[in-house]
This record gives sequence, structure tokens and C-alpha cells, in this order.
Amino acid sequence: MHIGIYVFDPVEVLDFAGPYEVFTTAARVHGRSQPGVPLFEVCTIAAGHAPVTARAGLPVLPDCTIADHPPLDVLIIPGGVVTAELARPEVIEWIARQAGQVQTLASVCTGAFLLAQAGVLRGRAVTTHWEDTADLRAMFAGLEVREGLRWVDEGAVVSSAGISAGIDMCLHLVERLAGRALAECTARQLEFDWTENGGRPAS
Amino acid sequence: MHIGIYVFDPVEVLDFAGPYEVFTTAARVHGRSQPGVPLFEVCTIAAGHAPVTARAGLPVLPDCTIADHPPLDVLIIPGGVVTAELARPEVIEWIARQAGQVQTLASVCTGAFLLAQAGVLRGRAVTTHWEDTADLRAMFAGLEVREGLRWVDEGAVVSSAGISAGIDMCLHLVERLAGRALAECTARQLEFDWTENGGRPAS
Repeated sequence: MHIGIYVFDPVEVLDFAGPYEVFTTAARVHGRSQPGVPLFEVCTIAAGHAPVTARAGLPVLPDCTIADHPPLDVLIIPGGVVTAELARPEVIEWIARQAGQVQTLASVCTGAFLLAQAGVLRGRAVTTHWEDTADLRAMFAGLEVREGLRWVDEGAVVSSAGISAGIDMCLHLVERLAGRALAECTARQLEFDWTENGGRPAS
Repeated sequence: MHIGIYVFDPVEVLDFAGPYEVFTTAARVHGRSQPGVPLFEVCTIAAGHAPVTARAGLPVLPDCTIADHPPLDVLIIPGGVVTAELARPEVIEWIARQAGQVQTLASVCTGAFLLAQAGVLRGRAVTTHWEDTADLRAMFAGLEVREGLRWVDEGAVVSSAGISAGIDMCLHLVERLAGRALAECTARQLEFDWTENGGRPAS
């Protein structure tokens, strides 16, 4: 399975590094008992080939671009300061196209704003960083923005709360894609106290 | 205050990205109420200028090297696969020298092996990833290796358990350096469930 993680200027470091760590660790843990083809192959994807500068200045060299990445099973859109990304039609259109192709499109933190801009949240519930729920509602009328959950799983679209909640959500995705045992082993490998306060909305 | 984070081939991604996120977020949160000179300036430090490849393939461009970094208040040594680093005298001697200069030298996960190799753990308790405690004891006789704690604070030297525990430890360091309120605000900003199971050893 190919897991793509979008990176941009300035993506929040833990928003992309947490999911990266979860899926690559899950692949490593899985490979111990079943060597061979990796279960998950993770790539970072940027709009272009140039390095991007994550928040606070960390440079990140993307593995590939929105024009040349492999077909994805899961695409994760992290957050950070997303104002500039919201105004890039080539990025928003790419997210919209990917929504029709990937098995799961997921956002971390303010990455939810990019999903909303791409029109993939219509009729679906979503969550984001606690600091940004009011803005998300104000910018995208009619969205069902949920609070107090680590993630909201709407099947084809999954969103997490802020920053570290991306780790909880990705452990949930590992469970969905490869089973409970691997998700638990991965959390234990990360020594991460998995908060399983997620779920489908009641409505 | 200058916070240095050592990066090497192949450093565990969350081991360095977690501390990076904690200190840069703490600086941002602090800057909201007290704009001006940043409270923390975080730099990544490698042995040389070339990009390093973090575990699973993530390329990291270091800000500076062990030969040209600014004077540090805190130096954090993450883990990963540390075998090659243990055999690099220039790195081990640099860590030993820094131990005499920084206010706090800290390790995450198997970074503790590098601290032990540098001789800075003599007479001090330490912790590491749960999978590596036996190896740490076997390789460095006489060390007091503690288990079941998120971090062990020995004053000038602080060590954390595996991977995500580096986040808990760094929140503790933020509290030590800048007070409880900022550490709590930072954890809340990260939506991180801070596990405060640390402390000084009983002995």
C-alpha cells in the first residue's frame, strides 16, 4: 500500500512527522514477522521538486510531487499555516482528484481546511484543531464540525484533531488497513499512549 | 536559549521531530504574549553539512554541524539505529565536550547509548526504549537503567523512554526552563496528552 503525505510551506512538523512515523514503524514491525514486500511504502509529496520549509524552519526534501507520485492508497494532508495552500488551484484540484482515486483521504489539524476547499467534506462530518473549529465553520458554511474527538472516520474521508492527534488517527488507519494487532504493536513500539477517542459522527 | 537537536543516519523521525515540535511550539506560544526575541531557538546539528537520511528514508537538511553550531543551552540526542554513531569518535567526543558546556544534555530512546558511550552517565540513572534496556545494561556495566518511566531527570542529564516519550520529556524541560504555565499551554497547543510519569531516581 502506498501512503502519501503532502508537505508544503509551512507544514506543521509533527502533523507530517507523526503519520510518517506511524506508517513506517508499522511497516517495520510487520516486516519482522513477514519479511518481503513492505506492507506500507510512505512518500512525502510536494507541489514541486524544491525543498519545502516546515514550520519554524525545518527544511524537508520531498520524495515526489503532485505531478509524479505513485498511485496512492492513502493520502494524508497535514496542517500548519494553510492560507497560501488554500489559494493554490493546482493543489486544491489535485486533492479533489485524489479523493476519487485513493481508498482513504485523511487530514491532520488544519489540513481539514484544504479538504473543505477541495469540496470533499460535503455531507461529511470533520474535526480539526480546537483553536480552529470556529474558523472552519465560518469559512465553510454547512460543514458538520465536531469537537472533543481525536479523529472522525467518515469512511473514505478521515480527519483528526490538532497536531499530535494525527498519530492517534494514523494508528486507527493502520488498524483499519491491517488489523488491530499491528496497530497495537505499532503504538507499543512508539511507546505512544493511543487515545482511541474517535469514531463516526452520531448523525 | 539555544536548543540543539543532533541528527544522524538513520535517526528515528519522531525522536527528533517531537522535541523540535515541542520547543518551537513553546517559543511560538510564548511569543504570542511576549513578542520580541524568541524564547527558544532550535537548530538541527549533524556531523557534517550533507543531508542526513532519517529512518525509513526521510531526508533532513541540518541547520549546522558539530563544528559550527552556536553555543547551546540544551543538547538533545535522539535515538534510532545508533550502531554507526557509537563508533564515531568525533561525535562521541563532541557529546562529551558538550556535557561540560550545556545546561542540560538530554537523550531520547536509544540516544542514551550515545550518552553512555560519551561517559556522561557514570553515577547517574538513565532510561531508554523498553526494547533496549537489557542491551544498555549489557553494553555499559554499572549503569542504573530505569524502566517504566517516561523520563529520568538527573539535573544536568535527562533521558527519556522510547520515541514518543521524547515529547513528554521535552515538555518537562520546557517546564524546568520556562515554567509550568508555558509547558501546559504547549501541550494543549499540541493536543498532546502529557504523561508526567518522570522523575529523579529513588536511589
